[in-house]
Amino acid sequence: MRLKHVKGASLRVESSSYVVQDPQKYRSKMQSFFPKKQPIHLEIGMGKGKFLFENAKRNGDINYIGIEKYDSVLIRALDKLEMEPLENVKLFCIDANMIDTLFDHEIDLLYLNFSDPWPKERHSKRRLTSSFFLKKYDTIFQNTKRIILKTDNRKFFEFSVKSFTDYGYQIDSICLNLYEENLSSNIPTEYEEKFHKKGYPIYQIEVHKQ
Amino acid sequence: MRLKHVKGASLRVESSSYVVQDPQKYRSKMQSFFPKKQPIHLEIGMGKGKFLFENAKRNGDINYIGIEKYDSVLIRALDKLEMEPLENVKLFCIDANMIDTLFDHEIDLLYLNFSDPWPKERHSKRRLTSSFFLKKYDTIFQNTKRIILKTDNRKFFEFSVKSFTDYGYQIDSICLNLYEENLSSNIPTEYEEKFHKKGYPIYQIEVHKQ
Repeated sequence: MRLKHVKGASLRVESSSYVVQDPQKYRSKMQSFFPKKQPIHLEIGMGKGKFLFENAKRNGDINYIGIEKYDSVLIRALDKLEMEPLENVKLFCIDANMIDTLFDHEIDLLYLNFSDPWPKERHSKRRLTSSFFLKKYDTIFQNTKRIILKTDNRKFFEFSVKSFTDYGYQIDSICLNLYEENLSSNIPTEYEEKFHKKGYPIYQIEVHKQ
Repeated sequence: MRLKHVKGASLRVESSSYVVQDPQKYRSKMQSFFPKKQPIHLEIGMGKGKFLFENAKRNGDINYIGIEKYDSVLIRALDKLEMEPLENVKLFCIDANMIDTLFDHEIDLLYLNFSDPWPKERHSKRRLTSSFFLKKYDTIFQNTKRIILKTDNRKFFEFSVKSFTDYGYQIDSICLNLYEENLSSNIPTEYEEKFHKKGYPIYQIEVHKQ
């Protein structure tokens, strides 16, 4: 996503009750943010929040945490939450690199939607499905490690399928053209709607590891 | 492939020096067919033989065995061999179901090209990448089990990726659009050329298992 500096974004993110400041302080206490103690689903790179919030609306028995690095993007998500408040949602404005300092065996499911593909080989470690990141995720999950990934980027998807299975994840389902399937349960992201309309296939894989 | 009965096909297949009659008799003696003892690569469902023969021409240091169930298809392969003889090729006119009665730890690499996808769930066992077949393949390979699969059928490819990894195969490479890649080493099958021209993506996966 091309980013522009948005005046006042930082201040707005810092003063929102939805955004947790210094989230590392709450390691192993993530349930304390929510009125109900229930499974936590995490989205890294939540962007403008459409996917996360639609999930939160549909599933009141799950708590959702969204991570987004850029405050200029996160304020678009805050716009949505002001229109339609959700008590089972919290947001962190932080780099995904910090993920293993944030959670201590507290997450039940991780969503990776349209992550930056980092196409250059020398940047492959930065891909959110590299073994570098998969290792970090090992400590965030409570029980079974479960990841659901969607992307329109073919090479990033190919890399991810291999990386997941190399690391010991098992495939629960794989789909190479999500919009040719029955989509009643699919919640599209903003980015997904745009790229599907342009005719790109959307890839999805669900994996787990004990 | 829609098949038609071809008069005289059976007789021609039975009298060709390229086609091994009663191949089960040669179990664990497959090298005896060839002038040179060298690795054997196998294609199940070789059809009209373009892929197998082009490989055999390029790689004189490999012996090739092609299996095809239908004599009406196999005679098209024999037409090619009569035009351009190849000493490192043998063909079996037999059902893939017999595979584990044919080879005893003699194969180095298995090609599955555009196999019948058997789309109905109740026929899933018949897919050449079902666990039923993967189990049969266990006894045909000499050392490391290596399979390279190409298909234009999305659902068969999705099934195969999951089936391979569920069975303990590791992914060496996966490509979801072969014709967007550097194709200098790709040898297309007759079917592949036709379906690529129609605009279908061609999927490929290479896997191995110790």
